[in-house]
Amino acid sequence: MKSGGEAAVAEWQAHFAACAPQVEVRWWDDPAVAPEDVAYVLVWDPEPGRIARFPALRVIFGAGAGVDFITRDPDLPKHVPLMRMATEGAAQRMGEFVCWSVLSLLRGARRIALQQQARDFTYFDGEGLATQTTVGVMGLGHMGAQAATMLRGLGFPVIGWSRTPKAIPGVEGFVGAEARDDFLARSQMLVCLLPSTAETNGILSAPLFAKLPKGAGLVNVGRGAHQKIDDVIAALDSGQLSGAVLDVFETEPLPPESPIWTHPKAIVTPHIASLPTRRERAEHVARAIAAHERGEPLRNLYDHDRGY
Amino acid sequence: MKSGGEAAVAEWQAHFAACAPQVEVRWWDDPAVAPEDVAYVLVWDPEPGRIARFPALRVIFGAGAGVDFITRDPDLPKHVPLMRMATEGAAQRMGEFVCWSVLSLLRGARRIALQQQARDFTYFDGEGLATQTTVGVMGLGHMGAQAATMLRGLGFPVIGWSRTPKAIPGVEGFVGAEARDDFLARSQMLVCLLPSTAETNGILSAPLFAKLPKGAGLVNVGRGAHQKIDDVIAALDSGQLSGAVLDVFETEPLPPESPIWTHPKAIVTPHIASLPTRRERAEHVARAIAAHERGEPLRNLYDHDRGY
Ligand SMILES: NC(=O)c1ccc[n+]([C@@H]2O[C@H](COP(=O)([O-])OP(=O)(O)OC[C@H]3O[C@@H](n4cnc5c(N)ncnc54)[C@H](OP(=O)(O)O)[C@@H]3O)[C@@H](O)[C@H]2O)c1
Ligand SMILES: NC(=O)c1ccc[n+]([C@@H]2O[C@H](COP(=O)([O-])OP(=O)(O)OC[C@H]3O[C@@H](n4cnc5c(N)ncnc54)[C@H](OP(=O)(O)O)[C@@H]3O)[C@@H](O)[C@H]2O)c1
Repeated sequence: MKSGGEAAVAEWQAHFAACAPQVEVRWWDDPAVAPEDVAYVLVWDPEPGRIARFPALRVIFGAGAGVDFITRDPDLPKHVPLMRMATEGAAQRMGEFVCWSVLSLLRGARRIALQQQARDFTYFDGEGLATQTTVGVMGLGHMGAQAATMLRGLGFPVIGWSRTPKAIPGVEGFVGAEARDDFLARSQMLVCLLPSTAETNGILSAPLFAKLPKGAGLVNVGRGAHQKIDDVIAALDSGQLSGAVLDVFETEPLPPESPIWTHPKAIVTPHIASLPTRRERAEHVARAIAAHERGEPLRNLYDHDRGY
Repeated sequence: MKSGGEAAVAEWQAHFAACAPQVEVRWWDDPAVAPEDVAYVLVWDPEPGRIARFPALRVIFGAGAGVDFITRDPDLPKHVPLMRMATEGAAQRMGEFVCWSVLSLLRGARRIALQQQARDFTYFDGEGLATQTTVGVMGLGHMGAQAATMLRGLGFPVIGWSRTPKAIPGVEGFVGAEARDDFLARSQMLVCLLPSTAETNGILSAPLFAKLPKGAGLVNVGRGAHQKIDDVIAALDSGQLSGAVLDVFETEPLPPESPIWTHPKAIVTPHIASLPTRRERAEHVARAIAAHERGEPLRNLYDHDRGY
């Protein structure tokens, strides 16, 4: 395993020891491990070419819900199943973060933080009511479906966009590229929960923002590759976007010199939207290994053809 | 009317003109108005003794949900009905603010804001899942019941405390002073939505915090009079409270020298949790006046005996 770096090895070992004592857990660069003895890897961002050097690999476990840092490896062996980390806790946690983000935009949380910094108690009105603010969720997978349902619970009208049709109670669906502009025209708040693929990278850019209602809010909890940060800043400055919560960035950690840090309309969060705890992930992987060894099919596999 | 000060008169007049053109709206200190011609007042914080000087007053409309700044007047005429501003939008808006506040404590929003200020992208884990965090709501009235229901929609287990029994689906109720400590012992997040009364003032103090589970979160959207701010700060410093969102203060605007402004575990908001817009309030008052003049009973009246 590599996820979390060498410092996290002992913690991973303890979690696996508790739930799957028969699984032997070793550090990615442990010199005592022969590559041909490795049956499973748990990894977030492997060095390109490295996974191909395990000849007996049975499953690659991605350490997060998105596996784009694994699939960018040109030498990734495509015959080895690649499983995304789709734990139940992770979808709930993402839903909570999305609800917090959308409410933060609705109620002016960035302004609240700046006023607190300035010790300024000036009253201001919220921008509107949840019940009168339509949220558009891009991507209705494991994460997006849960976020959409939880937003409904707060009273927001919710619409969603996906590649194939979905049936989520109370959520009006828009399907495929043809429906995109209609979906955007209705989205007073836009939440990106797409995977990073050739089709979706760079999607959060000026032409898309122009399709949104003037003064829309943006939440990006997908990937940094989805957004053109200069376009986000320009849209915030022009008022086309009234605010943004960004959890993901092209370069992470976000460099201190990025102008988005100090933007008065942007909330920056350090890629914390939804990582399951190590214990949750160890248990999830242990269950998957046990199921796999019983001959059961693996779920949440990456599909090399569709790219997510 | 007095609410909003003289600067707001024109706006109030325009809103009433749109929904109730027959209602003549005048500024509180308009010298051309004879006191005996005043049938209704709309006010948040009248000068003590002033309301008694309108001999023909039919209804006092409080400009907010809490009318404690009106009832502290020793000369308030008790035979004139006093109506609290209980609009539907206000309860929804409060529910949104409470959900935002509780999620802010759960996900470390104060830390997020401080890290953004320091351009620090350090990853950190959320404190837990909503589904594993019990929220205790003190006060299950117009506001509290709605907040409790919306918190349930996010997956939080919710318990509530009130003077008389309530039946809110999915919310376990605790009734009266005897049940208070049991309620507190279960509240990992405590939300205060009590009215300010002789019984509730000062309730958020060291003895109460000591009954909460160690590291509980506190949200006060009731009144500043409910909290002893020095006790809140001491509990945050000792770790008995892990965080607080405070919207109300003994003195408002909160003075710049208050130490709570810069506390690393406290979010300060400028009494914005839930004020309906002036338009919503004008429409609400216009409907009440029309109902009253048709001889229908008024709702949401202040009860001088119970004190809220
Ligand atoms: N910030 C964080 O902490 C964090 C944590 C977890 C995940 N994430 C991000 O969230 C992403 C989504 O996770 P997930 O588990 O929900 O993934 P998922 O289950 O694979 O869902 C992806 C969704 O996106 C839709 N989609 C994909 N390509 C599309 C296209 N070209 N046009 C329209 N819709 C498209 C899919 O449509 P179909 O349903 O029709 O296939 C599906 O609904 C991850 O890939 C990751 O980037 C971020
Ligand atoms: N920060 C803001 O922007 C903002 C906005 C609106 C309101 N508020 C505050 O929120 C308060 C509540 O508003 P509301 O409209 O929900 O009032 P409400 O409808 O009168 O409800 C008050 C609730 O408190 C309970 N209660 C009163 N005294 C109690 C006691 N001694 N022990 C236990 N429970 C007690 C009542 O119990 P019963 O149901 O048994 O009577 C009731 O459930 C207002 O008074 C105001 O202070 C703040």
